[in-house]
Amino acid sequence: MLRFINKTSRKVGMAPGTLVHIGEKKVEKTLLRLIDYDLENLEEKELQSVEEMGRLKESPTVSWINVDGLHDINIIEKIGKIFSIHPLILEDIVHTGQRPKLEDVEELLFIVIKMLKYSSGKEIIAEQFSLILGPNFVISFQEIKGDVFEGVRERIRKGKGRLRKLGSDYLCYALLDAIVDNYFVVLEDMGEKIEEYEEELLADPTPETLHKIHKLRGDIIYLRRSIWPLREVINEILRGDISQISEATEMFYRDVYDHTIQVMDTIETFRDVISGMLDMYLSSISNKMNEVMKVLTMIATIFIPITFVAGIYGMNFEIMPELKWPWAYPAVWGVIILITAVMAIYFKKKRWW
Amino acid sequence: MLRFINKTSRKVGMAPGTLVHIGEKKVEKTLLRLIDYDLENLEEKELQSVEEMGRLKESPTVSWINVDGLHDINIIEKIGKIFSIHPLILEDIVHTGQRPKLEDVEELLFIVIKMLKYSSGKEIIAEQFSLILGPNFVISFQEIKGDVFEGVRERIRKGKGRLRKLGSDYLCYALLDAIVDNYFVVLEDMGEKIEEYEEELLADPTPETLHKIHKLRGDIIYLRRSIWPLREVINEILRGDISQISEATEMFYRDVYDHTIQVMDTIETFRDVISGMLDMYLSSISNKMNEVMKVLTMIATIFIPITFVAGIYGMNFEIMPELKWPWAYPAVWGVIILITAVMAIYFKKKRWW
Amino acid sequence: MLRFINKTSRKVGMAPGTLVHIGEKKVEKTLLRLIDYDLENLEEKELQSVEEMGRLKESPTVSWINVDGLHDINIIEKIGKIFSIHPLILEDIVHTGQRPKLEDVEELLFIVIKMLKYSSGKEIIAEQFSLILGPNFVISFQEIKGDVFEGVRERIRKGKGRLRKLGSDYLCYALLDAIVDNYFVVLEDMGEKIEEYEEELLADPTPETLHKIHKLRGDIIYLRRSIWPLREVINEILRGDISQISEATEMFYRDVYDHTIQVMDTIETFRDVISGMLDMYLSSISNKMNEVMKVLTMIATIFIPITFVAGIYGMNFEIMPELKWPWAYPAVWGVIILITAVMAIYFKKKRWW
Amino acid sequence: MLRFINKTSRKVGMAPGTLVHIGEKKVEKTLLRLIDYDLENLEEKELQSVEEMGRLKESPTVSWINVDGLHDINIIEKIGKIFSIHPLILEDIVHTGQRPKLEDVEELLFIVIKMLKYSSGKEIIAEQFSLILGPNFVISFQEIKGDVFEGVRERIRKGKGRLRKLGSDYLCYALLDAIVDNYFVVLEDMGEKIEEYEEELLADPTPETLHKIHKLRGDIIYLRRSIWPLREVINEILRGDISQISEATEMFYRDVYDHTIQVMDTIETFRDVISGMLDMYLSSISNKMNEVMKVLTMIATIFIPITFVAGIYGMNFEIMPELKWPWAYPAVWGVIILITAVMAIYFKKKRWW
Amino acid sequence: MLRFINKTSRKVGMAPGTLVHIGEKKVEKTLLRLIDYDLENLEEKELQSVEEMGRLKESPTVSWINVDGLHDINIIEKIGKIFSIHPLILEDIVHTGQRPKLEDVEELLFIVIKMLKYSSGKEIIAEQFSLILGPNFVISFQEIKGDVFEGVRERIRKGKGRLRKLGSDYLCYALLDAIVDNYFVVLEDMGEKIEEYEEELLADPTPETLHKIHKLRGDIIYLRRSIWPLREVINEILRGDISQISEATEMFYRDVYDHTIQVMDTIETFRDVISGMLDMYLSSISNKMNEVMKVLTMIATIFIPITFVAGIYGMNFEIMPELKWPWAYPAVWGVIILITAVMAIYFKKKRWW
Repeated sequence: MLRFINKTSRKVGMAPGTLVHIGEKKVEKTLLRLIDYDLENLEEKELQSVEEMGRLKESPTVSWINVDGLHDINIIEKIGKIFSIHPLILEDIVHTGQRPKLEDVEELLFIVIKMLKYSSGKEIIAEQFSLILGPNFVISFQEIKGDVFEGVRERIRKGKGRLRKLGSDYLCYALLDAIVDNYFVVLEDMGEKIEEYEEELLADPTPETLHKIHKLRGDIIYLRRSIWPLREVINEILRGDISQISEATEMFYRDVYDHTIQVMDTIETFRDVISGMLDMYLSSISNKMNEVMKVLTMIATIFIPITFVAGIYGMNFEIMPELKWPWAYPAVWGVIILITAVMAIYFKKKRWW
Repeated sequence: MLRFINKTSRKVGMAPGTLVHIGEKKVEKTLLRLIDYDLENLEEKELQSVEEMGRLKESPTVSWINVDGLHDINIIEKIGKIFSIHPLILEDIVHTGQRPKLEDVEELLFIVIKMLKYSSGKEIIAEQFSLILGPNFVISFQEIKGDVFEGVRERIRKGKGRLRKLGSDYLCYALLDAIVDNYFVVLEDMGEKIEEYEEELLADPTPETLHKIHKLRGDIIYLRRSIWPLREVINEILRGDISQISEATEMFYRDVYDHTIQVMDTIETFRDVISGMLDMYLSSISNKMNEVMKVLTMIATIFIPITFVAGIYGMNFEIMPELKWPWAYPAVWGVIILITAVMAIYFKKKRWW
Repeated sequence: MLRFINKTSRKVGMAPGTLVHIGEKKVEKTLLRLIDYDLENLEEKELQSVEEMGRLKESPTVSWINVDGLHDINIIEKIGKIFSIHPLILEDIVHTGQRPKLEDVEELLFIVIKMLKYSSGKEIIAEQFSLILGPNFVISFQEIKGDVFEGVRERIRKGKGRLRKLGSDYLCYALLDAIVDNYFVVLEDMGEKIEEYEEELLADPTPETLHKIHKLRGDIIYLRRSIWPLREVINEILRGDISQISEATEMFYRDVYDHTIQVMDTIETFRDVISGMLDMYLSSISNKMNEVMKVLTMIATIFIPITFVAGIYGMNFEIMPELKWPWAYPAVWGVIILITAVMAIYFKKKRWW
Repeated sequence: MLRFINKTSRKVGMAPGTLVHIGEKKVEKTLLRLIDYDLENLEEKELQSVEEMGRLKESPTVSWINVDGLHDINIIEKIGKIFSIHPLILEDIVHTGQRPKLEDVEELLFIVIKMLKYSSGKEIIAEQFSLILGPNFVISFQEIKGDVFEGVRERIRKGKGRLRKLGSDYLCYALLDAIVDNYFVVLEDMGEKIEEYEEELLADPTPETLHKIHKLRGDIIYLRRSIWPLREVINEILRGDISQISEATEMFYRDVYDHTIQVMDTIETFRDVISGMLDMYLSSISNKMNEVMKVLTMIATIFIPITFVAGIYGMNFEIMPELKWPWAYPAVWGVIILITAVMAIYFKKKRWW
Repeated sequence: MLRFINKTSRKVGMAPGTLVHIGEKKVEKTLLRLIDYDLENLEEKELQSVEEMGRLKESPTVSWINVDGLHDINIIEKIGKIFSIHPLILEDIVHTGQRPKLEDVEELLFIVIKMLKYSSGKEIIAEQFSLILGPNFVISFQEIKGDVFEGVRERIRKGKGRLRKLGSDYLCYALLDAIVDNYFVVLEDMGEKIEEYEEELLADPTPETLHKIHKLRGDIIYLRRSIWPLREVINEILRGDISQISEATEMFYRDVYDHTIQVMDTIETFRDVISGMLDMYLSSISNKMNEVMKVLTMIATIFIPITFVAGIYGMNFEIMPELKWPWAYPAVWGVIILITAVMAIYFKKKRWW
């Protein structure tokens, strides 16, 4: 449950713009990776210090600096100084509980978005991914190493497609697109689980099934919350007026927008389907209980009366004329069989079997 | 369940605009059918190669090219080149998991919409239908052969009505109209099912009934998702500004819009009705259980006390004065009958029968 | 249930504008009634043929032509020709599954609205009422004879009030007003049913009660669907720009609008109330079951232990010292009474009675 | 329930603007009270005839005419003539089923609003309060004598505050404010009931509790319906353009608006809370049933097996070796105690007690 | 429950603008604390009388007057006179049942907002915090001593950060920010409770668990109501046109806005999660009941038939041939074991254990 909230309380009382890393420390050492390219040249290396970035700000090539690990406040602050990033934005970067949002502050476009993963415990978790888009650079911040951008890197290296030809705004699109495409992978996985649970539900629902469906429901709520605001973010880009994004790449952002809508659509559908499954579960519990009660009632209704008959003739009164009649015993058996038959017919008519 | 999502994951990491067919391969060979007409002339034939289309782009006649089968990427790419279709649109055409949408890109209008069918397993499935509307041509893409356009073709052949007189925008309307009209057929079919299940529900609900209603609910969710965005699509056409559609045909698009609203309305009503049916089911399970419990309770409440009475006089104490009384046995029967009568009156008063 | 959908499928594949009557044939012969009036003169008669209408189009008097019965396509088509009504509108008139809507096409205003009735089976059904408002005529189309306009006709005949003084737009208002007023009658009737069922629910709910409430819920869904779009229709009139309606009568249309809002309001309230009743029903079923279970449990919990005691001394062991004690039998009775008393106190404390 | 609808059917078929009093006749004789004041003078008296009002229309003092009782159509019509009130508005005044609304017709502002009371049967009922605001007069219409305006009258009499200084628009505000303030009193009362029922729910819920909560839910639905449209009414005043209300008093109307929002807010919260209480009720019924079932099951599960043991040795076979063993009887007791102990441990482990 | 409403009824009938303290008297003596600062100077002291404030209104330094305790109407009125605060605003300050709102009246900006606390009974309660922002002063009103502003005071004292450099609008921001940050602390606390209850729910749900979840649900409703309108308040600030807030600090207000959205988001998520937990609870009650019923049914179904068998041979008929057969007794045991085995296999197949 705690994945829903971050320990913001550690920050209470501090001045706004104070950098405090909120979130787990997920990586040992902050890793700075640079890919610097234009149509002809490509440089890919690991940066040893923040200072090396100085030259990148003004160079005409497109520079993609990827920062893995957010706990080292010093590094983040230095980057902020070099690229003149507003302190409130730096604060958002290191505070990993942001909603997806977009801010357009002096020359720079700041985007926060969630990257989905499966945790070791098979729970979906969302990693915060922040991105600063400048005139000819993109700085991306991740909580840990390991991302969904291998395809993008490969395309840059091979120089195929539009990536090498177009500017930093297209790179930014490519990163967003990779993240949103990854959402589909997570949704497919969920879809398969839903299918599996639904079959379980029809065949033989157990309390275990309920817990699994309930867990899935929690995942959906979490996903919804992580992705929903993204629509608004991309919509804001499309609404125009964002100087960092050229008209040429806008059509691509519209494509990401369509994908986001599709993701949201699927999430809503899943919600609907899962809520239907929970209703189904309750109904089948009721059905089962009904079944159990019928068995009990049939047994009890047949045997209680005939046990009473047997009880009657177990009494020890001195004067009980029937006890001496020669055909009394078979007659009692006749009565017992008669009662049983009547009951059986009654149940048959009530369609209890 | 998997009909809710498509295997988009196969595309993850690829450059945008890369054509990959997402969806099942539903047809062996891509089939290209052409109907080319103006007021006087009509040519209908199967095209053997994409190259034959070249001449159609500029000819003044209205050309309707229908493509059955989307797995052959080569053919789609060639068509794209001939009619200068944007790569992102080609991507949407072959990726059969799109939401209905409309895009107006350089001279061409691109519309995606869902065509409904019943699968062999009696499940509703939605086939993706894409349509490119150009100045004097319409290119339509279907996943498999077999569609709802026979009526349109017949009207073109016979030359009756407005089809031969008006341009490609009217043809586009005729196709959309045929698809939306087909929605009504599916809905009628559902309506009949609902009626049938409702009667079953009132007469004798079984777990089977529940499963059928649940399945219907799934169909409604699926339908809703496939059709809902269509409203927006047609609304966008009506809002004007779409150069490909002349004012003369706009009234017809308004008619399609009305039908779409009506379809959505019916779907919402069905949702409401089905949710009422699920409540009814739960209530009748409870009612049945109540009935079963009453039977059990009545039997137990009558026989347990009198069995106890019989048990008492089955004890073997040496000194039990009643055992020797001459009227003891009939007296016990009297007590038993009295208890039974009291209980029967009690149940009568409680209205248990 | 089938009242929710119309057999539109019969039209699939036909050209738009083809007139096909969709709906039951409810009347033998189409009946054409004319009321033609101005401040001084009044003519009321049954028209024998459509051709008689020709003169009415241009005459300065207000003509109200009422058509009962829609199955005779010929008549509808002829009327269309005389008053130059667009084919798509004629199509809507004979296709009785329209949502209430308003269309403003060349000089004529076309309104579709639902007229409510009780069917023989005590089910609410909605009859389609279409109306064409021209400069000095109103043509109204009904499925069957018998309507809610007797009051309007009477007011025309008596020449009292505004009807004879004002134009066709006021007549149109008077007809809409009569229909909306009739909604209140249906709602009052429902309100009385709700009251009756609610009392039944508090006194003694049976499965029969549930079915009745469920049926009422279906009626509400149906009503809602039939009336909801009307709000939009009248709102469109109020928004202005409709040349057929003079400013003088606009205030009256605002009055109809208020009534429509009030109708919708009442329907929403009924929905809320009925959904509360269904919850109540479920709760009372649970309560009853609880009651039944308590009776069973009390009987069983008291008699099962004491029956066991009796069973013990019914055993036939040779050496059972108690059997020979002189006070054993009364002592057993003492034990039995003690057990019963303890149980009674326990149930009392648990407040089971 | 019938408080939700008014017998509008009595009016069906009449011409619009026909005055018919819809509602119960709640007062014997219509009472006309006048308070006429300016900064220096104050006149308060009961008017004997409508004609006395003639002079008030033009006099520069502020006149507040309060009409108690709506059944005397003559009086209402005469007032209408004197102050030139539109017939449709007079119709709304006497027809007590209006939604709160505002109409701005030629110089006059017409406001309908609901005044809340408790009926003798402890049910909340809403009385219709209509108000006509003219340049220097306010005419208010109530169904019965007895209102919430004593405070306002007192303030006029004492000449304290702004009432005597400002015009009729401030008087109108003061009346609305008094009515909205009275809503809080009703809500407080409801809040106390909710608190009381919630405690009952936690301590010992009975079907009686359910009925009380259900009744409260009905009250909330009724309240909501009576008050909700008021927001819109006051909003319309604030949106400006209403010439009868001076800018100086607008800030006061904003205050009423805030109060109305607060009332609505509280109603929504109550709805939420009550719906939670209904869920709680169902859950506690289930809990109780569970408790009952556990008692039954424990008793049955312990005594049924040991009764069987006793039954075995009650059999009368000639050859039953155990019957003759000297330790058989104590051994049977041992078995019985063993079975009981095993069952007790089992239930303990299952945490049934 | 009563925390949802305030005793507004005490005010009914009074003139608007009359100051009456609505709410509990929570503090003995009203406490006036002043912090007066500019870049160089800092004065912090407790004011002994309201009159000392006179000089602050015009002085160029930023003055923050904090008032703890609202019951002393005199003091509030004097403050109102000194700083020319509108009577309706003073009324809102002392009436502690306001919704969060913003009012911009002549030079002054008035903000009401809720400050969250835990009551002694571990219930969340909201204290009303009002704030008047003037050109160079901020007056804040709290119900009791003790707030969340220690961090702000510390930052003023230390002169670090922007607080001493910027004007009263930044101070106002700092206070709002501190309150909103405190919301996160409350939410974290709730989140931990949710996590804890959810584990309880999976492990062993008791009626106690239900009550705790229900209480949490009440807290969420209360929180939602207290915080929701805040969004609108801050949005109004951002929409511009508020002269008291300089453009330089607007970015900071945007930050508070983002936080508010995040708070609302979390509250909605909690609602969703809690509603899922309530469903889970109901399901597990049903599951448990099912379990109990199965145990009862198995015991009864096995022992009732075999007890009947034993009952048969306990009868005392003179002629019962079986009683004399030598192998009868073991044969009866055989029958009993057979019945038990058959039942056991039946239950095994039905998967009852």
